[in-house]
Amino acid sequence: MTDLSRLSINQETVKQWSLPELTEGCVKAGIDKVGLWRAPVQEYGVERTAQLLADAGISVTSLCRGGFFTALDPAERARALDDNRAAIDEAAALSTDTLVLVSGGLPAGSRDLHGARERIAEALAELGPYGQERGVRLAIEPLHPMFASDRCVVSTLSQALDIAERFPAEQVGVVVDTYHIWWDDQAAAQIARAGAGGRIHSFQLADWITPLPAGVLVGRGQLGDGSVDFRAFREMVEAAGFTGPIEVEIFNEDLWARDGAEVLAEVAARYVEHAC
Amino acid sequence: MTDLSRLSINQETVKQWSLPELTEGCVKAGIDKVGLWRAPVQEYGVERTAQLLADAGISVTSLCRGGFFTALDPAERARALDDNRAAIDEAAALSTDTLVLVSGGLPAGSRDLHGARERIAEALAELGPYGQERGVRLAIEPLHPMFASDRCVVSTLSQALDIAERFPAEQVGVVVDTYHIWWDDQAAAQIARAGAGGRIHSFQLADWITPLPAGVLVGRGQLGDGSVDFRAFREMVEAAGFTGPIEVEIFNEDLWARDGAEVLAEVAARYVEHAC
Repeated sequence: MTDLSRLSINQETVKQWSLPELTEGCVKAGIDKVGLWRAPVQEYGVERTAQLLADAGISVTSLCRGGFFTALDPAERARALDDNRAAIDEAAALSTDTLVLVSGGLPAGSRDLHGARERIAEALAELGPYGQERGVRLAIEPLHPMFASDRCVVSTLSQALDIAERFPAEQVGVVVDTYHIWWDDQAAAQIARAGAGGRIHSFQLADWITPLPAGVLVGRGQLGDGSVDFRAFREMVEAAGFTGPIEVEIFNEDLWARDGAEVLAEVAARYVEHAC
Repeated sequence: MTDLSRLSINQETVKQWSLPELTEGCVKAGIDKVGLWRAPVQEYGVERTAQLLADAGISVTSLCRGGFFTALDPAERARALDDNRAAIDEAAALSTDTLVLVSGGLPAGSRDLHGARERIAEALAELGPYGQERGVRLAIEPLHPMFASDRCVVSTLSQALDIAERFPAEQVGVVVDTYHIWWDDQAAAQIARAGAGGRIHSFQLADWITPLPAGVLVGRGQLGDGSVDFRAFREMVEAAGFTGPIEVEIFNEDLWARDGAEVLAEVAARYVEHAC
């Protein structure tokens, strides 16, 4: 097997697995990094998860997710800030330096994208220092424009950097996820911009396949099955100075229906074939 | 009823109607402009359609669609050019000055977005003069990035203008369709750029609603049901010098299941409420 030293498996890629199964599966496959999600970690227990992974020699490359900063209602905004402080605490407990943010869509009835983006910046001004004190960087993930109304008004790396650059890079950076930005002819220039500022806090891979399923959330493709040129993206982030983990995060019903170990082996093989 | 003088109904919005029904329905509703699609026009007969509409005093604001220029196979490319020349002839026969282009996605197995975009430019170099001789402008429609792999590698107004500006504005311009570009914070600047160059060849309205249906093609919303600020877009195109028709083009199964006259009346009312 070619070198898997930079490969990280996001747990949603094999979400049919419990945390102990994920841990055991990664050890067997020679993979020593995972990306985690808050809900399954909370269910298993944050400290217990941290111990499980530490005992197995597995590190956590990112925690998903904070965010949802765009509410107009003050009470709802306060709750979101509280929840994000808890997410930062959880990230610190898991010894990961990166909390991935899904920043939030338009509030019901609103058509004000600019206002929503400004509320994201306001939230980051409060959360950035809290994260820095705990060694956790906030990583704005631009989501594909098809999610702009309901999940994330930040649709491009350019928009994400326009917000992130208002803060120190130790507090706020971006996620470069191929699934969300593969179509954008500005991506190369924006990756260079992000790298120059030390703001590539996470690099994630998933392929773009069609037809999209209803709701479009779980239509991501296994590496190599779709339109994304992974090697080109890897070259872009490395040319921009990024040498961190490469996290594979695929939401796909077909992968979830299969044996986890088989999926993990396929991901590793595809990673070597398409991204190394 | 407030002024409907600039309103054009794209026939796909009421595709439950035949061309005679569309004609009669528009006359009754006081709407004197329509946008047409090639397939139903060919089925009814191009000359016969032209006569039907002329007799009713209805003009054609655009014909959909040319395009699909991205094939790698030379024979397939030659067929696409032939088909686009036929589309230009049909547009001329219908006395519309605008042929809308859906430029094409990635060929099977290809991941080369840049190459695909260059092949669009090559096709336009051949077709632009042919259109100009017949009084037909080619209008590149940027399609939402969720269509980048399978329908159109031109995803933003910026990309569309980068291609269009290689040619005279009398030959090649762009479509400003709110559905496709509403999420883009660069849209305002690019609309200004398009207007300054005399390249806003069509202005189309549809709303953005979620959840998206499987395949995402027929998930457009009635005006006012979603996230698009139509008045803001109308102000942008008008500030850019555009005074042409405002075409409503909604692909939506629920609208197609209803009575055409009722849908048309609702579109007109929503247009007045949200875009005037």
